[in-house]
Amino acid sequence: MTRNVWEYFSTQNIVFGNGSIHNLDKLLKRFEAKNVFLITDQGIVQAGILKKVKEQLALHNYEVVVYDQAVPEPPISSVMEAFEFAKSQMETDVIIGLGGGSSIDLAKVVALLMEHGGHPRDYFEEGNVPGPVAPLIAIPTTAGTGSEVTSVAVVNDTENNIKVGISDNYLRPAVALLDPELTVGLPPYVTACSGIDALSHAIESYTAKDFKHIDAEGTILFQGAFPITDALAEKAIELIVNNLTIAVQQGSNIEARGNMMLGSLLAGLAFSNAGNALAHAAAYPIGGLVNSPHGEVTGLLMAYVMRYNVATSKDKMVKIAKIFDLDRDDKTTTELAYAAADAVLNLLEEIGLPTKLSQLGIKEANLEEIADKSLSIERLIRNNPRVPRKDSLMKLLKEAY
Amino acid sequence: MTRNVWEYFSTQNIVFGNGSIHNLDKLLKRFEAKNVFLITDQGIVQAGILKKVKEQLALHNYEVVVYDQAVPEPPISSVMEAFEFAKSQMETDVIIGLGGGSSIDLAKVVALLMEHGGHPRDYFEEGNVPGPVAPLIAIPTTAGTGSEVTSVAVVNDTENNIKVGISDNYLRPAVALLDPELTVGLPPYVTACSGIDALSHAIESYTAKDFKHIDAEGTILFQGAFPITDALAEKAIELIVNNLTIAVQQGSNIEARGNMMLGSLLAGLAFSNAGNALAHAAAYPIGGLVNSPHGEVTGLLMAYVMRYNVATSKDKMVKIAKIFDLDRDDKTTTELAYAAADAVLNLLEEIGLPTKLSQLGIKEANLEEIADKSLSIERLIRNNPRVPRKDSLMKLLKEAY
Repeated sequence: MTRNVWEYFSTQNIVFGNGSIHNLDKLLKRFEAKNVFLITDQGIVQAGILKKVKEQLALHNYEVVVYDQAVPEPPISSVMEAFEFAKSQMETDVIIGLGGGSSIDLAKVVALLMEHGGHPRDYFEEGNVPGPVAPLIAIPTTAGTGSEVTSVAVVNDTENNIKVGISDNYLRPAVALLDPELTVGLPPYVTACSGIDALSHAIESYTAKDFKHIDAEGTILFQGAFPITDALAEKAIELIVNNLTIAVQQGSNIEARGNMMLGSLLAGLAFSNAGNALAHAAAYPIGGLVNSPHGEVTGLLMAYVMRYNVATSKDKMVKIAKIFDLDRDDKTTTELAYAAADAVLNLLEEIGLPTKLSQLGIKEANLEEIADKSLSIERLIRNNPRVPRKDSLMKLLKEAY
Repeated sequence: MTRNVWEYFSTQNIVFGNGSIHNLDKLLKRFEAKNVFLITDQGIVQAGILKKVKEQLALHNYEVVVYDQAVPEPPISSVMEAFEFAKSQMETDVIIGLGGGSSIDLAKVVALLMEHGGHPRDYFEEGNVPGPVAPLIAIPTTAGTGSEVTSVAVVNDTENNIKVGISDNYLRPAVALLDPELTVGLPPYVTACSGIDALSHAIESYTAKDFKHIDAEGTILFQGAFPITDALAEKAIELIVNNLTIAVQQGSNIEARGNMMLGSLLAGLAFSNAGNALAHAAAYPIGGLVNSPHGEVTGLLMAYVMRYNVATSKDKMVKIAKIFDLDRDDKTTTELAYAAADAVLNLLEEIGLPTKLSQLGIKEANLEEIADKSLSIERLIRNNPRVPRKDSLMKLLKEAY
């Protein structure tokens, strides 16, 4: 059956700009907040970023309690620790998530538990979040996950040995506060991995199957591409393609940093409505096998998935080629579509990231398991414009190997 | 001083598609609503649209009270009548505004008074709305005002003989529900006037002064053009340029209707953040002199304001020319920029709207008064990329006369 309706969800308020951290007081006042619970990690403490934010809060006499033990892809134990710590303190009016995707994801789950109680596992199933969560201001310090505006929080259920995304539109932070100056100190490798992750969000949502043809009933979170997500994704691709290499090579280039942060934000708005697809589906099992940062895996896969998807998505691939400034009169549209994929490979090289799965430590013997596990991630697989089957996916993975 | 920070506000939830009116129950459930207060007008009653919406509500056993006396640019007396009527009824969980911009605007002000009490005049000054208003679902039946997602409600203070926009980000409806099938019966002239109004929103926000250079201190609602509004406005211009004439000439063309509705929505998101500029500033005093629909006036003025703004905004005008498919190798960028303005004039002719102020019944003797009053509308004038001065504005108006 054709799906006729799309539903776009957005963070209500996005604040962006160099020095925008100075707006924190104004934003907190809108919530009539006095007591702030701030969640961050040791990297942010050591980079001196927490100090900057605390200064803003002290200036305006907020009561602040800090939990600074966020870890990447927070295990449930860490979520419960942060939640118990928050409860043991004063009243909390607003939660701030400060850091990369993990600190913000942790803040989302704490905001959920503060409002609705229970245990993270209660919310693994889509649709289980009963209503708005506690007011949350997300302040990202990387340009990549888009978590400051998305509906997803990834937690690690270590007892059951799976990583799970708690996904619900109620998890979108009430405010996303983006200050590019906070990202200036980010090392080149982290800049590269997070930036290419943002690009893969933008390309996966842009080239996702059209919303009309997604094979699912009822309300779904990842709905396929629709006009608003296309507009956001296109702009995101443009910003990232034109700024990622500069941000990696010239860390203090504040203009490139700002454009990357904006690209990542727009990609987050796009993919949290349209959804990701095959590159992210395959990245999950690979992430279970090797320790590479998430973006290193999705970015690498993206190039090969684009080649795979030319068959169904030539028009959009040609548009991506145009953004890479590759369109020349002597090229056919098919050549242009493949050139877009090659341009992503080339970008990976420019920013010093691997272009082959073997470089990550994946063995050829792993490929079949990767294919099988990827194909089981229904909500991402059905979003891919070309339906992956075992044989064609194995061919793709061998090409990428 | 350079402004470094922009702030983007959005309706949290936008539902779009043919037959999306069937989603009303699902949307009301999110508010745990039982009792609905519906505001609409006689045109909607007579077109049979109210019946369709009431059927949806009856199917799911909602208690519904209808106020169907909304009038264009509602006078304060009409606002108070609707508000008193709402109060005299049961509890209201959700307010629905169904109709053109006026019904939705009226619903916004009633939602404001339901939550915070007082009188519309208490809120004329920007920043006076103390917090969120009552939950509001906006269901537009025209493609033009964008009111379903904007922060503005226009009311007519007839005692003091001024039209005022109550403007606050809290006035954005919680949900915008857009069903293009509801617009199929719209007559060609209304389609033309509302559609060209949407185009003028898109072009005015796209070519508005860059946010960095707006000459104002502190928090302002209309912030000038910034990257998100640019992306939305560009897409809106594309949709409207490619579909308005078809929607006017082929009322039942549901694809064109859908694209117009989407264009109007995106233009609403863009202008309610970036702001309108000179064409809207001049439309206010003209609206006080003649009875033309608002869109007829802004659309006409837009073409001449574009010519006026080529001096500062050639790049953006060239992009608009490209959307009109006018870019040819033998044209200079200046020629292209002017061609974009001419294309808007041409579009006005295609959809049967006047291209000269004299056709509206304006007299040459009115022009000076129009210029003076326009220049006093600070928040729109400062948004224009080329600062209008009395002499240059008079020249513009004479050209448009």
